[in-house]
Amino acid sequence: MMAAQMDNQAEFVGGAFSSDPEKSAEAGKAYYMDPKRVYKTWQEMVEKESALGEDERIDFVTIVTPNSSHAEIATAFAEAGIDIMCEKPMTMDLASAKALAETVKKAEIAFALNHNYTGYPMVKQAKHMVASGDFGKINKIVVEYPQGWLSGYLRGEEGAIRPWRMDPKLAGSACCMGDIGTHAENLARYITGLEIEELCADLSSFIPDNKLDDDGNCLVHWQDGVKGILMASQISSGEENGLNIRIYGTQMGMQWFQEDPNYLHLKDPSGFKKTLSRGNPDILCDAANKGSRLPFGHPDGFIEAMANGYLAFFEEVRAGKPTGADHPTVDDGVVGMAFIETVVESAKAGATWVKMKK
Amino acid sequence: MMAAQMDNQAEFVGGAFSSDPEKSAEAGKAYYMDPKRVYKTWQEMVEKESALGEDERIDFVTIVTPNSSHAEIATAFAEAGIDIMCEKPMTMDLASAKALAETVKKAEIAFALNHNYTGYPMVKQAKHMVASGDFGKINKIVVEYPQGWLSGYLRGEEGAIRPWRMDPKLAGSACCMGDIGTHAENLARYITGLEIEELCADLSSFIPDNKLDDDGNCLVHWQDGVKGILMASQISSGEENGLNIRIYGTQMGMQWFQEDPNYLHLKDPSGFKKTLSRGNPDILCDAANKGSRLPFGHPDGFIEAMANGYLAFFEEVRAGKPTGADHPTVDDGVVGMAFIETVVESAKAGATWVKMKK
Amino acid sequence: MMAAQMDNQAEFVGGAFSSDPEKSAEAGKAYYMDPKRVYKTWQEMVEKESALGEDERIDFVTIVTPNSSHAEIATAFAEAGIDIMCEKPMTMDLASAKALAETVKKAEIAFALNHNYTGYPMVKQAKHMVASGDFGKINKIVVEYPQGWLSGYLRGEEGAIRPWRMDPKLAGSACCMGDIGTHAENLARYITGLEIEELCADLSSFIPDNKLDDDGNCLVHWQDGVKGILMASQISSGEENGLNIRIYGTQMGMQWFQEDPNYLHLKDPSGFKKTLSRGNPDILCDAANKGSRLPFGHPDGFIEAMANGYLAFFEEVRAGKPTGADHPTVDDGVVGMAFIETVVESAKAGATWVKMKK
Amino acid sequence: MMAAQMDNQAEFVGGAFSSDPEKSAEAGKAYYMDPKRVYKTWQEMVEKESALGEDERIDFVTIVTPNSSHAEIATAFAEAGIDIMCEKPMTMDLASAKALAETVKKAEIAFALNHNYTGYPMVKQAKHMVASGDFGKINKIVVEYPQGWLSGYLRGEEGAIRPWRMDPKLAGSACCMGDIGTHAENLARYITGLEIEELCADLSSFIPDNKLDDDGNCLVHWQDGVKGILMASQISSGEENGLNIRIYGTQMGMQWFQEDPNYLHLKDPSGFKKTLSRGNPDILCDAANKGSRLPFGHPDGFIEAMANGYLAFFEEVRAGKPTGADHPTVDDGVVGMAFIETVVESAKAGATWVKMKK
Repeated sequence: MMAAQMDNQAEFVGGAFSSDPEKSAEAGKAYYMDPKRVYKTWQEMVEKESALGEDERIDFVTIVTPNSSHAEIATAFAEAGIDIMCEKPMTMDLASAKALAETVKKAEIAFALNHNYTGYPMVKQAKHMVASGDFGKINKIVVEYPQGWLSGYLRGEEGAIRPWRMDPKLAGSACCMGDIGTHAENLARYITGLEIEELCADLSSFIPDNKLDDDGNCLVHWQDGVKGILMASQISSGEENGLNIRIYGTQMGMQWFQEDPNYLHLKDPSGFKKTLSRGNPDILCDAANKGSRLPFGHPDGFIEAMANGYLAFFEEVRAGKPTGADHPTVDDGVVGMAFIETVVESAKAGATWVKMKK
Repeated sequence: MMAAQMDNQAEFVGGAFSSDPEKSAEAGKAYYMDPKRVYKTWQEMVEKESALGEDERIDFVTIVTPNSSHAEIATAFAEAGIDIMCEKPMTMDLASAKALAETVKKAEIAFALNHNYTGYPMVKQAKHMVASGDFGKINKIVVEYPQGWLSGYLRGEEGAIRPWRMDPKLAGSACCMGDIGTHAENLARYITGLEIEELCADLSSFIPDNKLDDDGNCLVHWQDGVKGILMASQISSGEENGLNIRIYGTQMGMQWFQEDPNYLHLKDPSGFKKTLSRGNPDILCDAANKGSRLPFGHPDGFIEAMANGYLAFFEEVRAGKPTGADHPTVDDGVVGMAFIETVVESAKAGATWVKMKK
Repeated sequence: MMAAQMDNQAEFVGGAFSSDPEKSAEAGKAYYMDPKRVYKTWQEMVEKESALGEDERIDFVTIVTPNSSHAEIATAFAEAGIDIMCEKPMTMDLASAKALAETVKKAEIAFALNHNYTGYPMVKQAKHMVASGDFGKINKIVVEYPQGWLSGYLRGEEGAIRPWRMDPKLAGSACCMGDIGTHAENLARYITGLEIEELCADLSSFIPDNKLDDDGNCLVHWQDGVKGILMASQISSGEENGLNIRIYGTQMGMQWFQEDPNYLHLKDPSGFKKTLSRGNPDILCDAANKGSRLPFGHPDGFIEAMANGYLAFFEEVRAGKPTGADHPTVDDGVVGMAFIETVVESAKAGATWVKMKK
Repeated sequence: MMAAQMDNQAEFVGGAFSSDPEKSAEAGKAYYMDPKRVYKTWQEMVEKESALGEDERIDFVTIVTPNSSHAEIATAFAEAGIDIMCEKPMTMDLASAKALAETVKKAEIAFALNHNYTGYPMVKQAKHMVASGDFGKINKIVVEYPQGWLSGYLRGEEGAIRPWRMDPKLAGSACCMGDIGTHAENLARYITGLEIEELCADLSSFIPDNKLDDDGNCLVHWQDGVKGILMASQISSGEENGLNIRIYGTQMGMQWFQEDPNYLHLKDPSGFKKTLSRGNPDILCDAANKGSRLPFGHPDGFIEAMANGYLAFFEEVRAGKPTGADHPTVDDGVVGMAFIETVVESAKAGATWVKMKK
């Protein structure tokens, strides 16, 4: 909500805030919303908002319900012609993701996936530099997403025990790879434009009663002969939210860390390690500058990155249709589900090579 | 504006946006404001808003006009009983700062100064640790604010030439020390609670036609026998916005960098250098946790720090009076002006020791 | 030579310095050596030194000839009862490594392999902490050795072209994995005591005419259910000598970088990131302290690490037999060759899982 | 000793190792030295070595006795025509330093002061870049040397109590400024070539019974209108050996940390922060390359830096006279003593400005 409203271009006016109607009403009050627009269920919301005239109707809906309900809710709003910002993962499996993508395209609505990490300006700068050939021919990618929070489970810390994450019915077929591995795949693809061709995934469940993965190491072959590693982990004790990527081309290498997002580190073999700072309009690309609210030295953070995704989505909301704005799309949601299914199939077969599903 | 609205507790509904009435009207339109509340002058705004009933009247005003007009405008709104968020420096000299402080206290309005750097959660954690005695008896402080932007002037870069900063009529009696030296003083005082007793300031004007300082190095004696250095510079080529502070006590040292604000570095002489991360409610103090919107690993930035000042101010706006909420006050504004006048007097006397003015 | 002589316990007195007798003589002169002890060939050296009495004979020999001659030369000196410090890789294949190990053990000489990276004090501290259970049960290891120097080949830089590295006859069956992948395996095993059970290696030759690997990514299963990644690369443009390791246990994680070797980074999930500095005898283990020549804040480097291997070797040279001193052994040399052959077999089979050879 | 022998160009063959003749004899034995050359006193050593022929006589002597005896011993060896490597501080006061300098120059011997921090290759690179004009006109210098070891005294740690450091008879007129402040002065002068014109020194004794300074902050005016700060401290809890320098010119800024000595950080206002690595012969200056024993990525440390001073000294020892080789000289020793006396005079006068003594 902070991210959506950051740039003063949207205001939350209503919603269905809980599966419990009373709690929904209370939440609406806390947000100073008109009680008439605080609905008991999302079904009621679709129905009543659809009945309003174009001018009165909400401009868009944000879906932040449990994963298993995304597909159904998104389909209903899409069919009602209401623009959608949907939390990831988009659906529970690849088939339903593809079905939703079809519905969304048919409805010609604006649809964005909240894959926020690509909203960081220096990620956009990296994408620009890859496209400009600054790194030469890309040969190797190492993308990692280590977290440590589930290791608390192994130490008996109560706060770390969130059973729904490990329940296939609620979380889908993957836990760690679904929750954060998809961000790693998305980040590498966003920056380089390269799709995974095949992968070999070694998933583990270090937590004794975990039916799903809490750690995974993958060998990856991307398009164009690019090779590398994709790693995601929730049991890397002491890691916070360590998404990071290294890309090596024939001319130069680079590194970006999500926890220190305002800097892009260039590894120039001529002998200078260089660091580019966000907020330097003279030397950064347009997309990086557009996503910057403050000059260099005034750090931006996670909320600003997420707000950039919203800003791009709002361009389409105002246009009333998809325009190719710079935000994660329904197709990114489809690739994410394909990635999860490919990884799980590879792991189940004993970490063998599997072609990326489509 | 982003910072003020971040937490969904305020909305900008009107204002006087330019000394040119037409520009003011245009700006109001861009912000989707009611034209009736887009005023031609601040005088008109005071008058018309004062005439409205309690329920309709604006809750507070934000003053972001040039420095030389802060005092007059703030006095008018204070006398009208309207709460104020004022940009720093609060006034042009110590006398008018003290006068405004008196007016504000008499009016019993909420008044906050936008000294945003103390809004960072890890600054609040440092303050808490000093108060808790974690560092032992403080002996030494080194607080620095190096920037490089004015060095562009020395290289003939057009963008670096902003004459008003160097004009005593518009900027006051100090340039670098007024603009950023005051932040350094404020940061050290906020964390340690220590006031400057006396200082010896060596100010320079490296820019040929600069009548004011663009660099300054000060020896400082704080209360309780604490000694140290306060440095501020606008000609430190290549520095971005490098506010940082080191504090050394008998038990431990610490360091905080504004450009990497989510971490507090502890220098434990027992042999462990430790780093505390923002967003860890179990081990951080209440004030640091209150100022955190996201868990560790999800970086906060400058806008969030500024929003924390607004949040504290809003507590008072809702209370309808000063409550001691955690934001820079009118008294901080007075100390800031006292600091500037003390520094300038010391420098003019050839960098001799001068007692801090009151 | 600097490393061997650092601690004033050895002096180089003679040798065979080139396959060209004249060059050998010249080199001996430059080192101020007695010409009688500057031999034309290593065969002459073995013969003449063996003929000398115990008191006159050299105490040990250092073998730094091309890889393909290590086995033959080491066997000759071992059979003559002369202690050996041998460059890695120890031999050209696993069979000859095992044969040499047998010879060395039968001769009961002191034999050390110059796997210098385990000589760093903070690596020894990490080993101590793993053994002490400070990290809990280890679950995951990520060990990487990225270098960029061969990427110069891809950019047409002359200096980067060293054909012998890519020639199977001179370099053996692996280039990157043999030269630096073995260091990564050795480092992980030294710290954790864990052997690789099986691995899946994806090797690449990005340099067009390279018959050997210049990059490799491996999934690894170590003993005790530990999983992870071993990566080595010579085409990671802009990387210098980036050997590093991360180890995650149930209680804590850790990280060590060869390029910043005086620090061990602990990732404590209780919220403190901690850094231990070399040279702090009160809190570091005996092995780390023994390997430190200076107090904290006075950085040690690569030569000192290598000198630590020599110091441990000299303990055995003085003892006249193996004593279990803390240096890489002939068995480490065997494991290194086994690693290379396993990796190459896995890669040739299309990156499939292969049990570690013995 | 490690540093002196590192490059295989010198060997310690004898000495007077203690004021207690028995201890001296024991030490000599431990170093495997000829007992005839292990002297009971330095007087005996001067006498007997002088009596030997040119070929047999020692090439040079290293003086590492307590500060108060440096002048007398050095004078005696100088008058005997024996080259000298002398620990710093060179003498106990400026007058005796100037007298020694005269003796040394008259004797035309090689004389080096062991001011090791300028031996680091990246310090030499910084010096080269200043001289080449890469930073433009220098405007500001901030040089700091924070240590924390004496803060242990304030916490009652036994190890921190070394009374001789605080005894004016043994340590001279300054403790912290004499021991480490002189290194800071020397580093700034070595890199920039600038001498101090005047300074204003605020010295403190935080340790209750300390008759000398344990902390000091100085405002400094160097030649050419350069202004800045020189700080040294032994009570900065948790600091290790934090010598560092920042230099700001009109074109660019730079930073170097002794604890991370292999890198030189350039602050380029055009927007790239750049880091230069030691061991890159193509882009570094001759002096930096000459002082490097290993390629980039293989860290050098303190011993190697000290060895560089010895190497330069040995050039002169071999030449049999001063040649202007790149090591700290007897004149550096004189400036160091002048610095100490100036700082102490300024502090005693209540931190007022004092012209640098000569």
